[in-house]
Amino acid sequence: MSGPGAGVVVGVDIGGTKVLAGAVAEDGTVVRTATRTTPGRRVVTQQVEDALVAAVLAAAEGEPLAGVGVAAAGFVDSAGERVMFAPHLPWQGQPLRDLLVARLGCPVGLDNDANCAARAEAHHGAARGAASALMITMGTGIGGAVLLDGRVVRGANGMAGEFGHMQVVPDGQACECGRRGCWEQYSSGNALVRSARGLMAEQPSVLLEMSGGRPEAVTGPMVTAAAEGGDLVARRAFTSIGDWLGVGVANLVAALDPEVVVIGGGVSAAGDRLLEPARAALRRTLVGAAHRRVPPLVAAELGPGAGMIGAARLVRDAQVLR
Amino acid sequence: MSGPGAGVVVGVDIGGTKVLAGAVAEDGTVVRTATRTTPGRRVVTQQVEDALVAAVLAAAEGEPLAGVGVAAAGFVDSAGERVMFAPHLPWQGQPLRDLLVARLGCPVGLDNDANCAARAEAHHGAARGAASALMITMGTGIGGAVLLDGRVVRGANGMAGEFGHMQVVPDGQACECGRRGCWEQYSSGNALVRSARGLMAEQPSVLLEMSGGRPEAVTGPMVTAAAEGGDLVARRAFTSIGDWLGVGVANLVAALDPEVVVIGGGVSAAGDRLLEPARAALRRTLVGAAHRRVPPLVAAELGPGAGMIGAARLVRDAQVLR
Amino acid sequence: MSGPGAGVVVGVDIGGTKVLAGAVAEDGTVVRTATRTTPGRRVVTQQVEDALVAAVLAAAEGEPLAGVGVAAAGFVDSAGERVMFAPHLPWQGQPLRDLLVARLGCPVGLDNDANCAARAEAHHGAARGAASALMITMGTGIGGAVLLDGRVVRGANGMAGEFGHMQVVPDGQACECGRRGCWEQYSSGNALVRSARGLMAEQPSVLLEMSGGRPEAVTGPMVTAAAEGGDLVARRAFTSIGDWLGVGVANLVAALDPEVVVIGGGVSAAGDRLLEPARAALRRTLVGAAHRRVPPLVAAELGPGAGMIGAARLVRDAQVLR
Amino acid sequence: MSGPGAGVVVGVDIGGTKVLAGAVAEDGTVVRTATRTTPGRRVVTQQVEDALVAAVLAAAEGEPLAGVGVAAAGFVDSAGERVMFAPHLPWQGQPLRDLLVARLGCPVGLDNDANCAARAEAHHGAARGAASALMITMGTGIGGAVLLDGRVVRGANGMAGEFGHMQVVPDGQACECGRRGCWEQYSSGNALVRSARGLMAEQPSVLLEMSGGRPEAVTGPMVTAAAEGGDLVARRAFTSIGDWLGVGVANLVAALDPEVVVIGGGVSAAGDRLLEPARAALRRTLVGAAHRRVPPLVAAELGPGAGMIGAARLVRDAQVLR
Repeated sequence: MSGPGAGVVVGVDIGGTKVLAGAVAEDGTVVRTATRTTPGRRVVTQQVEDALVAAVLAAAEGEPLAGVGVAAAGFVDSAGERVMFAPHLPWQGQPLRDLLVARLGCPVGLDNDANCAARAEAHHGAARGAASALMITMGTGIGGAVLLDGRVVRGANGMAGEFGHMQVVPDGQACECGRRGCWEQYSSGNALVRSARGLMAEQPSVLLEMSGGRPEAVTGPMVTAAAEGGDLVARRAFTSIGDWLGVGVANLVAALDPEVVVIGGGVSAAGDRLLEPARAALRRTLVGAAHRRVPPLVAAELGPGAGMIGAARLVRDAQVLR
Repeated sequence: MSGPGAGVVVGVDIGGTKVLAGAVAEDGTVVRTATRTTPGRRVVTQQVEDALVAAVLAAAEGEPLAGVGVAAAGFVDSAGERVMFAPHLPWQGQPLRDLLVARLGCPVGLDNDANCAARAEAHHGAARGAASALMITMGTGIGGAVLLDGRVVRGANGMAGEFGHMQVVPDGQACECGRRGCWEQYSSGNALVRSARGLMAEQPSVLLEMSGGRPEAVTGPMVTAAAEGGDLVARRAFTSIGDWLGVGVANLVAALDPEVVVIGGGVSAAGDRLLEPARAALRRTLVGAAHRRVPPLVAAELGPGAGMIGAARLVRDAQVLR
Repeated sequence: MSGPGAGVVVGVDIGGTKVLAGAVAEDGTVVRTATRTTPGRRVVTQQVEDALVAAVLAAAEGEPLAGVGVAAAGFVDSAGERVMFAPHLPWQGQPLRDLLVARLGCPVGLDNDANCAARAEAHHGAARGAASALMITMGTGIGGAVLLDGRVVRGANGMAGEFGHMQVVPDGQACECGRRGCWEQYSSGNALVRSARGLMAEQPSVLLEMSGGRPEAVTGPMVTAAAEGGDLVARRAFTSIGDWLGVGVANLVAALDPEVVVIGGGVSAAGDRLLEPARAALRRTLVGAAHRRVPPLVAAELGPGAGMIGAARLVRDAQVLR
Repeated sequence: MSGPGAGVVVGVDIGGTKVLAGAVAEDGTVVRTATRTTPGRRVVTQQVEDALVAAVLAAAEGEPLAGVGVAAAGFVDSAGERVMFAPHLPWQGQPLRDLLVARLGCPVGLDNDANCAARAEAHHGAARGAASALMITMGTGIGGAVLLDGRVVRGANGMAGEFGHMQVVPDGQACECGRRGCWEQYSSGNALVRSARGLMAEQPSVLLEMSGGRPEAVTGPMVTAAAEGGDLVARRAFTSIGDWLGVGVANLVAALDPEVVVIGGGVSAAGDRLLEPARAALRRTLVGAAHRRVPPLVAAELGPGAGMIGAARLVRDAQVLR
């Protein structure tokens, strides 16, 4: 993207409800963005591709396209050519990358959203300069990525980074995946809400009022708001998922010994309320903590645009852009 | 080692009791070996270095040294220059690699023994041809290594691959490391013996006779022998550690999605008695097993010489040998 | 109830949906029954009392009342005078027993339904002749009672027998009670359904068809029917809750060493499909099984009328009836 | 024991190392005591009986014997006639009670030591006046007794009160009994020491000095002394076993709903250091804590003489003494 005639690099993040596209500069700066609504899962794939292309063109604003990176909320094959399966998107193995190359007339890169977000943090965010990093994305569940030598480890099936379903409690909480004791049952947005509901049965909480007396109506944002207001139940819920965050991170650090651990995703907005108990648990649970530099556990820096920024990075790294 | 005047490449594996050195050909074939006794931990470091050098020269048998690789049973720093700490060796951070370069007059590579064994299996053994692999070494505890693009992941502190102390049971079995529920408390040579002792309290077993009526005198080799003879207690003990092996492997596969998983170390000699229950548990516990190729779980091929062979590989890969 | 003028003893079981009353002979035989619909929880208490009295009089069919026993689905105080709290009944501490004495003109006994069922099994059913027994009631959750010297242990708060909320898994499955790892999360009608749903994600099952492809629509009766038809998922679900039944029973037997353990409640209709894995787990988990007579684990004999029969027994035992 | 010619009632506690006999008044007051050394396990039973009789006669000091109660550290049959098995005593089912009746010429009662201690606390100590109580004895392991209507529940095999081997952690710490996750692996004198040893690996402690730098040489009394001196590792160890004490007590209270819970045995000497975390865990873990009076959790009052005092009580209660 250096030199005249280079054109613009656009990153797109396509989730279940929204397509977010942005023109992204070499240094990760987002120059301008455009959004479209995701048509859904039960439509023909072309409708989603149309929305994607529309968002890209809107973000490019007439500039020639030097490259487009796509971050998709689903399983992407290890070659980065197809979305194999996605809970909220219609693709099931169609050659999406080639199809977009044909429609957009420029190089296209494709990866899943957690990998793209990790790539963005590695180049422009909290893991900048680290030779190795672990990225944990906490939303309703847990996703993530492993970064080595600044590269994302994609795995033989493109399925590396499925941290949320590592078993941390034998015979533990039942998981939607059909197994028990998965990490994300103890540390995630859903776990935060479940923990708060359970604690409401034990001690008074403003959450009772906020939920109209119905614990089943409590939501994650309610717990976050209550914790900020000093509610003890909400704070205990954050401590619980933070502690489990640290326990799971310790297992991954024992295996991979990364330089830094970055926590992203919606739940990470809680900052130290989440991270402090996680750090304590990491120090407590990590093997050989006395004989090593325990990696810093830090919040992601790029916010909800990380997937888009990392998608742009993907296509830049994949070729010399001219 | 191509061309005249190249000389021989020697790999050395230095453990707590024995120094094993071997001249190793480019294709991993061991041409000849030599052993020395390890002087121990409470001696001056030079004594151990003398034994190491003596074994190397004996293995070289007068040929010029093109390079020497050293596999050490302890923590090696991430630069591969020093043994930082080892339970049975005297070094504590001395610049061992430089020292050996000066004494041997050739390039020297240094890494820990599990990494070297993994390197050997990756190039010449069970993980040959795989772009990524997970290596699990089952001895009295669990060690291992992560291989990506044919390279060992060494970690920011040189401590990657410490799988044995990943927590698999909250509040579980106490571990020598001071924590609870570490994986190696459920799947290792020690776990095999503990499991057999516990089961002896429940049902008849030839182990009672073999141990002179003292469960505390049961050893790993006794359990192996009893299992081969059809003893049900011994077989149940293998099933137990095999099942836990699969559970832990499933967690690592969820995180890293490797092409193949190789099980080495002394306990792996039990073969399918250990691996079959592990494969069943891996299929049962691995996330998305229906949507992926579950990696084959196979026995290591190179046996007790793997560390030595991999040490030789290390020094070959580190430079162009002439 | 022997001799002229004695009158009839009526037992009533008042649950959330139905009032079941019966004239019960000295030997536990049910002579005739009558039912009424329970008016619900949000009505004035008198409406429920009216329904109760109506059912009693219908069951008495004009005979004079020698005594009435009431089994209520809720917390009854330790003196047997009040229903303190019930999820589906309106009482909250009103002096129900005295009130019924005034309306019915005869002695009245009151206890919770699990205690009454236990009393019935102790006198006329599966625990007949045993000096001590443990009664486990498996419905959607787990309830139960401890019988010593043929008497029910009611507890200082009338709350003995709350077995379902003994913690069996630290950090385990979240429970409606706000805690984690309660026994009834692993062994109950609800646990059966949850287990089956989880297993459906792993292997084919007729339950997919029965539930119209929606695992969330699976019910307990569906699992029972599928298990009878040979479906492996349904059978594994029964094995799972049966195994956990035995583990929990072993804990109670270690504490109380009863002569016999009786399993009642709706789920117990599955018989040996539930009880065989429970017996195996009891033998495996019970301390000192080699040095004791392991108590037989048997199905209850009196079926859904047990509460009513035991309520009648309660009032007979409380006084000499003439 | 009222009226002329009554004679003295003697209680004897026979443990693995010492025989302790005492003349005990009706109100539980110990009038005088005598001790003998226990001859051991590998002697003929008569030697132990001789020591027992000698201690009784010394405690009686010439007064006629109105009755003798014996508390034995082992399994006593449900009829109270024989010691079936004891780790440190030679009896294996001999008719000990009849034999002592013949030698002593007075009524004799026999029960295990935990039951006798519970009986003493129920009549003269911390459970005085309670209709029901739970007694937990914490020594190297956990024993205990259930008291109902002031009577000890002995069980169908005389084995009630084996609380220490209730499973609290699936796949937990291996137990000497051959199973895993028994309660006494988490809350007992042995658990205290194990916990302290583990924590020493994490943070500085005076225990390192006290044990000559060898964690394996740490003992229970060392941990107690260190905790009193303010050592954080020792205090954390007490908090750990106290917390698990409360978790296990909550399970028993859910089942039995006793009026009071009494903690005795050597470890209970730590008082609130043990009991405060136990009370917190009991409140946190007990079902329906909001709807009941949570039973007070109190220290035993009678100290090491409790077994002897309760043995005397046993023989008083068994007959009208004249």
